[in-house]
Amino acid sequence: MKLDNVNKEQLLAAKAEVTAAYEELKSAGLNLDLTRGKPSPEQLDFATDLLSLPGDKYITPGGVDVRNYGGLNGIAELRELWGELIGVPAENIVAGDASSLNIMFDLISWSYTFGNNDSPRPWSVEEGLKWICPVPGYDRHHSITELFGFEMVTVPWTETGPDVNAVRELVKDPAVKGMWTVPMFANPTGVTITEEVAKELASMETAAPDFRIVWDNAYAVHVLNDEFPPIIDILGIAEKAGNPNRFWFMSSTSKITLAGAGVAFFASSKANLEWYGKIANIRGIGPNKVNQLAHYEYFGTAEGVRAVMRKHAGSLGPKFQRVVEILNDRLSEYNVAEWTEPTGGYFISVDLVDGTASRVVQLAKEAGVALTAAGSTYPLKKDPHDRNLRLAPSMPSIEQLDVAMNGFATCVLLATIEALEA
Amino acid sequence: MKLDNVNKEQLLAAKAEVTAAYEELKSAGLNLDLTRGKPSPEQLDFATDLLSLPGDKYITPGGVDVRNYGGLNGIAELRELWGELIGVPAENIVAGDASSLNIMFDLISWSYTFGNNDSPRPWSVEEGLKWICPVPGYDRHHSITELFGFEMVTVPWTETGPDVNAVRELVKDPAVKGMWTVPMFANPTGVTITEEVAKELASMETAAPDFRIVWDNAYAVHVLNDEFPPIIDILGIAEKAGNPNRFWFMSSTSKITLAGAGVAFFASSKANLEWYGKIANIRGIGPNKVNQLAHYEYFGTAEGVRAVMRKHAGSLGPKFQRVVEILNDRLSEYNVAEWTEPTGGYFISVDLVDGTASRVVQLAKEAGVALTAAGSTYPLKKDPHDRNLRLAPSMPSIEQLDVAMNGFATCVLLATIEALEA
Repeated sequence: MKLDNVNKEQLLAAKAEVTAAYEELKSAGLNLDLTRGKPSPEQLDFATDLLSLPGDKYITPGGVDVRNYGGLNGIAELRELWGELIGVPAENIVAGDASSLNIMFDLISWSYTFGNNDSPRPWSVEEGLKWICPVPGYDRHHSITELFGFEMVTVPWTETGPDVNAVRELVKDPAVKGMWTVPMFANPTGVTITEEVAKELASMETAAPDFRIVWDNAYAVHVLNDEFPPIIDILGIAEKAGNPNRFWFMSSTSKITLAGAGVAFFASSKANLEWYGKIANIRGIGPNKVNQLAHYEYFGTAEGVRAVMRKHAGSLGPKFQRVVEILNDRLSEYNVAEWTEPTGGYFISVDLVDGTASRVVQLAKEAGVALTAAGSTYPLKKDPHDRNLRLAPSMPSIEQLDVAMNGFATCVLLATIEALEA
Repeated sequence: MKLDNVNKEQLLAAKAEVTAAYEELKSAGLNLDLTRGKPSPEQLDFATDLLSLPGDKYITPGGVDVRNYGGLNGIAELRELWGELIGVPAENIVAGDASSLNIMFDLISWSYTFGNNDSPRPWSVEEGLKWICPVPGYDRHHSITELFGFEMVTVPWTETGPDVNAVRELVKDPAVKGMWTVPMFANPTGVTITEEVAKELASMETAAPDFRIVWDNAYAVHVLNDEFPPIIDILGIAEKAGNPNRFWFMSSTSKITLAGAGVAFFASSKANLEWYGKIANIRGIGPNKVNQLAHYEYFGTAEGVRAVMRKHAGSLGPKFQRVVEILNDRLSEYNVAEWTEPTGGYFISVDLVDGTASRVVQLAKEAGVALTAAGSTYPLKKDPHDRNLRLAPSMPSIEQLDVAMNGFATCVLLATIEALEA
């Protein structure tokens, strides 16, 4: 946002009130945290049964003893169940250990070192590697491509997904090897990529034959109400478009069962899975199948997953609602910010007046309210406009959120007043 | 072994008997397997309680909620317990997911891509990378260094460990970046590296400043009787020798609790762990701490681990004894083979007359007894003498072992007769 758009007179008229509110905030000695995109203890309690599973069972319905070595692709039953949930045939799914981030890292690491199944040579020997990052985006995605030395080129998120025209231009460069996406309830914008945009991403021509889109569908069923949107069949679309290997489709139970002890899934074309499996088979003997059976027993069916997600919605929905209410109540009249009102996912993205985001974080910190650092949603943690902040409402209680968000609003107002007066 | 050493007359005199025994073996329609270095179902049953743990506990004694994200180094209590068991301070231990092989792969992969904490440059840009492989050794070790394009140079295992004089010569070459070892009850020789050899490995000068020894202590407490040998303080020895970063010390609960669902540990110098952690922190958010708490609850103390291992010894000891008895009974008089009589670990290593190992595997296969492929214990799966075979007695029952080992002995005799007559 530009400073010009602010309702200056109203805001300056409120200066004394805002300043007083901030002083009061500081003197309250708060210690609140809006940084962590983690499930709350209340949410984790939904999975209490899982802590005693698989119990006395250790043979899968298909006859596999999950306690022993082997089974690189994970147990069939959980892959079936998850395939039904995300609309992918089980044969196109690998069930792994707890973290899909681990798998994404390995996919990029191994493409870098060995090349992937469509690479003429390892990525490491190419000149000037580039990676497309829709912004604002997920900091841990950016950290991976930063580590491997990619130049991270940004495209904006629109209401329908990443700006496809911008993407289409960028992929004409053979040094552009891939792109991050969170296709549903994106971190942090909450946007879900439309089928039309998905089709364009699947069908566009790329100069690099081994170009990959990380389709990190981390929030596919993470609704804040009772409506589960359709999950786009991105692998089917890609196959029809003649680019069957374009997508690395990731998902996991991390924010469904136990954040640190779930099961991650990697869905992709048979050729991609074969390439991955060949190296994974040297890296190890197979994933934790006991935990996979425990999850299978816990869910029972795909509908069982949605039943759990309804509980999460019951816990998270009111928190998101409260955040949006407070932003509306406190900031609307001054036109000092724009924010998302997501129907799923874990975050609310706030755009402030350009140049004020870091100041808001600093003011909040001094008042005992921890916010995710300004810039975190951009590659190299540098927001060129110093504008975007990511709020994570899941961990605090509603009461804590109330205090923290009112404090946040006060800091936004104060920082904007400072900017107006500067 | 050389053909010259065989007691030819006795063996040829037994030809008719051996041939008849082999025909009988073939006609028995067996389906037995001596290939798999896996715990038996009986052994896995020792850990049945673990399948319901951590149960209603999810907060560590130190106050960490194991269900949520975070804790890259693993939970403190299990690191303490394991540290006491293996003689390493907890601060020098990372507890990870289920597989130490995964960690070894990553250590080499990341050294290759980025260089390790002592590397002047990434290993990938060095010329003619080499890696020392004591032979016979562990096939999955070799597969990793093969994948990364190392030339694998071999040194023989002696009764006290890898031939140190040979190693000392090899490490004068700066292209030699590391070495595999299984320091206790080695796979497959059963040898335990002596403290004297360990000190030499720790103190020798290496041309490569970033040279590493993978100290894969997979069988540290895997005794076949009641005597737990001392575990060498290799990190302390290395530090005293002025090479604190030389060893990557690996261990895991894989063959203690659940082979596919245990906890792996990486112990090393602070500098090594910091380097590893910096990259691991980008690869993910932390290991499965629920499984770590479950293991902590299951063991209770370091002595609790040894108590479990006594049960394993009770199950495995008689099997190893039977294998050795049969080898003695059937083969000694002909001097056609030498074998190890290990007091721990998972394998018996058999050296046959040069050039007969693959033939034995083929004969056994035709009779329905699966043996690990000849050459498996050598880099690139090529045993230059076609001599060594690795027997894995853990999975079959004693009755199955009886049949399989008598069959094996018959095949060894027949293959040697063929060689004598060729």
